[in-house]
Amino acid sequence: MTLAHAIRPDWIAVDWGTSNLRAFAMTEDGSTLAEASSDKGMSSLKPDEFEPALRALLQDWETPSTCTVIACGMVGSRQGWLEAPYRATPCMAQTDRPIPVQNCGDDLKVWLIPGIKQNDPADVMRGEETQIAGFLSLNPEWDGVICLPGTHSKWVHVSAGEIVSFRTFMTGELFDVISKGTVLRHSLGGTDMDQKAFDEAASETLSRPEKFSANLFSLRAADLLKGQSPAIARAKLSGALIGMELAAAKSYWLGQRVAVIGTNDLSDLYERALNQQSVTVERYDTAAVTRAGLCTAYAAI
Amino acid sequence: MTLAHAIRPDWIAVDWGTSNLRAFAMTEDGSTLAEASSDKGMSSLKPDEFEPALRALLQDWETPSTCTVIACGMVGSRQGWLEAPYRATPCMAQTDRPIPVQNCGDDLKVWLIPGIKQNDPADVMRGEETQIAGFLSLNPEWDGVICLPGTHSKWVHVSAGEIVSFRTFMTGELFDVISKGTVLRHSLGGTDMDQKAFDEAASETLSRPEKFSANLFSLRAADLLKGQSPAIARAKLSGALIGMELAAAKSYWLGQRVAVIGTNDLSDLYERALNQQSVTVERYDTAAVTRAGLCTAYAAI
Repeated sequence: MTLAHAIRPDWIAVDWGTSNLRAFAMTEDGSTLAEASSDKGMSSLKPDEFEPALRALLQDWETPSTCTVIACGMVGSRQGWLEAPYRATPCMAQTDRPIPVQNCGDDLKVWLIPGIKQNDPADVMRGEETQIAGFLSLNPEWDGVICLPGTHSKWVHVSAGEIVSFRTFMTGELFDVISKGTVLRHSLGGTDMDQKAFDEAASETLSRPEKFSANLFSLRAADLLKGQSPAIARAKLSGALIGMELAAAKSYWLGQRVAVIGTNDLSDLYERALNQQSVTVERYDTAAVTRAGLCTAYAAI
Repeated sequence: MTLAHAIRPDWIAVDWGTSNLRAFAMTEDGSTLAEASSDKGMSSLKPDEFEPALRALLQDWETPSTCTVIACGMVGSRQGWLEAPYRATPCMAQTDRPIPVQNCGDDLKVWLIPGIKQNDPADVMRGEETQIAGFLSLNPEWDGVICLPGTHSKWVHVSAGEIVSFRTFMTGELFDVISKGTVLRHSLGGTDMDQKAFDEAASETLSRPEKFSANLFSLRAADLLKGQSPAIARAKLSGALIGMELAAAKSYWLGQRVAVIGTNDLSDLYERALNQQSVTVERYDTAAVTRAGLCTAYAAI
């Protein structure tokens, strides 16, 4: 029996990160019929658990008898399903032919998109290369700097279709461990953020990055002594971390065309902080460019 | 029956921090007969659990029929046994009369040493004020800057027996959450530290603090791409954090007489980093000055 609303994809696009697995039911022309996700991220799986996790996620869809799956992200890391060796900068931004996973059975053909490495200064990306390829497929001939804020924010210099250089900043992960794992957790509850406090902290830390360290404990002391609100403390921490990132990434954004690819909340913060430095940004949504990038890789196999 | 080696203190000195409780069996003249410790730190106790935790620790000693206990540290915080209100800077470095805890029974007289607050920039200390008082009792007339490295490092300007100002840096706690709670944990195992890598990272971050953020992820990438050793990565993280602290504390140490009060390992690192900036330091052990400070408070009641 066929379900009334059966999903019949031509192929499957997969964004498989450290913490989550997301699959998209795709048509030949690049439309998305449906999506599914689970918490079976790379970090929770042993090598032989990737195939069952993928099959479980696809079971409600009527996939082709030989189903092509294109996956990006940490699934291709050394701790993932299979290591898809890095390409090295400078390199074409468009993804090469992905790496096939062997031994999945005749009904499943899985391909992993390689990450990109940079030897000096040492840096790596896995997943963002797919977003960049997707972004450029949607914006051919685009030259400039792409900022991808997140757990590990990236700044990527793109010129003439090449990734020239990039740097990674642990901004999101630092916010996470500082706000949850230190004494500041008592002063940073909730999710609200005061915009003025964010702007001031971002601007101050950008111009005087050495104050970062002293300003952290002040968040606790201002709570104890003056009852400073968590919304102000959160905004100051976020502003200080993003200001520090912008200070270090200045050679990337200063005088450049800048695109920000991220979720809405995070892109808002980066746009505010960059606007304060008289930098306007073009904004793109992570999910859309990721899927576009997986489509370019599908076209390449 | 009296034990052959019974400990008969005249009074008890206590260092009661967030994670640990340490008691010292003291004589009138300030000698230490014995010490005892437990993991009953402030953070693991409700207000009515402090007295039993203290009594349990003292049970093997033959205390006086009315036993005086002088305690410093987080035991006197709002989350502690009883809040001993902060004194405000500028203030005498010698501790005032401590705050008595009521209702312990006639056999136990407990006194808590107040912490010190600073209104602008907002900052607080609890425990370090006792170390500073002890340091000055051992070094009367000493003027200069005292650095107390640790979970929350302090820089304290002391002049003419007064605490003029101070700043707190979350250096130790940041090292802890970054090395254990982020992706860097995969690249920072063990306890070894490469001295040359520490020196370079401390010096670079002191002069270019904005690079702190970019250099963090490089520790991971250099492991993945070049097999950088954990001893080098740990040293670079430690050097970067201490370099950042020294950059922010420069107005404290530049051109000043500097004393470092800390554990040996940590004081070594601060001394190396300060020596690179042509600053020589006088070193003192935390345990010794803490006990000296508790003695001055005992003399004040």
